[in-house]
Amino acid sequence: MDPSRDRAMEVAMKVIVLGGDGFCGWPTALHLSNLGHDVIIVDNLSRRAIDLELEVGSLTPIAPLGKRLAAWNEITGRKIRFERLDVAENYHRLLSLIAGEVPDAIVHFAEQRAAPYSMKSSAHKRYTVGNNLVATHNVLAAIVESGIDVHLAHLGTMGVYGYGTAGMKIPEGYLPIEVVTDDGVRVQQEILYPSNPGSIYHMTKTQDQLFFAYYAKNDQVRITDLHQGIVWGTNTPETSLDERLINRFDYDGDYGTVLNRFLMQAAVGHPLTVHGTGGQTRAFIHIQDTVRCVQLALENPPQRGERVRILNQMTETHRVRELANKVAALTGAQVAFTPNPRKEDAENDLHVRNDLFLDLGLDPITLDDGLLREVTEVAARYAHRADLDKIPCTSTWTREQRPGAPVEDPKIVAEA
Amino acid sequence: MDPSRDRAMEVAMKVIVLGGDGFCGWPTALHLSNLGHDVIIVDNLSRRAIDLELEVGSLTPIAPLGKRLAAWNEITGRKIRFERLDVAENYHRLLSLIAGEVPDAIVHFAEQRAAPYSMKSSAHKRYTVGNNLVATHNVLAAIVESGIDVHLAHLGTMGVYGYGTAGMKIPEGYLPIEVVTDDGVRVQQEILYPSNPGSIYHMTKTQDQLFFAYYAKNDQVRITDLHQGIVWGTNTPETSLDERLINRFDYDGDYGTVLNRFLMQAAVGHPLTVHGTGGQTRAFIHIQDTVRCVQLALENPPQRGERVRILNQMTETHRVRELANKVAALTGAQVAFTPNPRKEDAENDLHVRNDLFLDLGLDPITLDDGLLREVTEVAARYAHRADLDKIPCTSTWTREQRPGAPVEDPKIVAEA
Repeated sequence: MDPSRDRAMEVAMKVIVLGGDGFCGWPTALHLSNLGHDVIIVDNLSRRAIDLELEVGSLTPIAPLGKRLAAWNEITGRKIRFERLDVAENYHRLLSLIAGEVPDAIVHFAEQRAAPYSMKSSAHKRYTVGNNLVATHNVLAAIVESGIDVHLAHLGTMGVYGYGTAGMKIPEGYLPIEVVTDDGVRVQQEILYPSNPGSIYHMTKTQDQLFFAYYAKNDQVRITDLHQGIVWGTNTPETSLDERLINRFDYDGDYGTVLNRFLMQAAVGHPLTVHGTGGQTRAFIHIQDTVRCVQLALENPPQRGERVRILNQMTETHRVRELANKVAALTGAQVAFTPNPRKEDAENDLHVRNDLFLDLGLDPITLDDGLLREVTEVAARYAHRADLDKIPCTSTWTREQRPGAPVEDPKIVAEA
Repeated sequence: MDPSRDRAMEVAMKVIVLGGDGFCGWPTALHLSNLGHDVIIVDNLSRRAIDLELEVGSLTPIAPLGKRLAAWNEITGRKIRFERLDVAENYHRLLSLIAGEVPDAIVHFAEQRAAPYSMKSSAHKRYTVGNNLVATHNVLAAIVESGIDVHLAHLGTMGVYGYGTAGMKIPEGYLPIEVVTDDGVRVQQEILYPSNPGSIYHMTKTQDQLFFAYYAKNDQVRITDLHQGIVWGTNTPETSLDERLINRFDYDGDYGTVLNRFLMQAAVGHPLTVHGTGGQTRAFIHIQDTVRCVQLALENPPQRGERVRILNQMTETHRVRELANKVAALTGAQVAFTPNPRKEDAENDLHVRNDLFLDLGLDPITLDDGLLREVTEVAARYAHRADLDKIPCTSTWTREQRPGAPVEDPKIVAEA
């Protein structure tokens, strides 16, 4: 039996999971429920609605939430409650829920989380800004108005740091700096790492940080901000229990994360679409480590009056073209270098500290451990559900960028 | 004749003034119109609506906007147009206006601008966040969607910097720092000055900065952010032309700025309400310098692709109790030290660079030049319109703070 389970059972918490029907929220809700915590999912089902808008679906078959929750109860005997409300729109319902339930913690996933979706059009930019910023602020305002000492754990992103690091390791949230005063005295300070977001979506997470810093300072709200890398993988032990519990696997140009896209492309015989040179180095984490990290964060909250606790929720870094090569080596897929729809540096290094989670006991699942299982158990198994038309990244960062789709001249399609 | 007028006339611009019916927006609109620019005011009249909510009004009599604009036309022959729309709500009307008018510049005052109002309740916090952030983002998204190369000048606040400066002068927006890499190498960088807002209102301005940095980087929007000190004074040459053009003078606990409140309190024989020890040092600027600064900013826009141009729009710093003493010396008023409704340091130093505006030719109006005129021409003249019940600052930063009103024990009321 998982030793973390015994520990958690001793301090069973009531936890509201905002966005608990989504890709990270759903497995987090199941994991926390399985540990014996009392979990309430809040969701407006927006992720399902966006599938309708984009005319796409998860590669894996996602059951309706009612069916998911009934299956969880049937299989484990545990009950997860569900409140359908929009955190950005229904402030007073959220406040009533907090005041009535008196939760120990709130996990906040209730944000639009795809960078390409946030860049599709002015309307998508404005939706992402309005939804994400107002949702985060509503949660904070409701916690303060309720007068309850709730620990808020928020999913941030490694993207708040940007991808130019001057040769140093990215610290966990705070950067020690030196400033020279007018008298020539060197003063040492520690500041929130200067943000450099790469999309409207990432920008909202940098703005969230300023909400958190302010509410921690003025109202002593206890806040943990988890700067997560790109998530790969699909299932956790809990979502693997029954197909009705299966997690999302997005492969489309807007919501699919890079590694999952490569896996699906390999499964359907499509060349792996590398944007630009593939020289972008990014941070990654397996979905199973995501849910463990949230657990660890909840078990180790900051004290009241402490500054925001920021942890880098990632376990390894890889260059995009190296990922493509790994998948190609496993599957025999070809690699296609496409135009880069994003406005970003073609190549970058990335060195990230993640000592805090390692010190708390995280034992990461590496790509080399888990990749083959994803290929066979998920991508190949559900490949028949794929809509190949949805593979290209059609959302471009400016009018000058071009979609991330293989161009017609076959010369640029090279073997890995 | 003002030499700046000749220069401007040679390059007459079309300028949209968002929030052009407000305390800074109205005199700015008149000043730009008087210089020969084609001015369009956009406003939702929210400042007038908030007067209704707070059951208070400007000490000076504010004419309806239609009457203001008719008077301006009657007196000067110049025409200012008006579009009533809500920048945060009516995105497509804003976009159509920009696309149809093809303005050279937009001046953005369309934000809720009172820190105490932003702290009154959860609803006021949420209004300020929703209005200010969505408004700023709508303006940026509309500029990009229009495809027009508009220069955006935004009113920020000195409050983005916070009031703890480690003994150095606050630079204009960007701070040179040194970071030590893992190899022990010192790397010099220039970063957006780390923000430390003191209220929800100020927080929204720190978040605005991240909007601007992103849109300047991704879309090459030309942006000037003006970090303004606390404005004092009432009229400019243009608003002084006719009583129908007179500017606002707010004295209430929410919207009144500290110096104007002292002037009004002196005029009605009320003790000058100093919050806490009055040791807070703040930056100040006269409203007439505000409008000149906006003019100078519009005449000196950044280049396309340049980072956000940030200027400190302030001319002098004073400690609050020194201001009270100055007003007391001029008027014979008493000074009352009240509880501080704000959560802030009791005492702070403040040294601020403002070289950029001085280099552009700003010749500041000092407190010592202009204070007496405010006392006689505004505060004393309209004192009969004051509602003394509206003087206390009833909006507190947390449940622990107490309103900024003289306490009943007369011992704490000391002579200046």
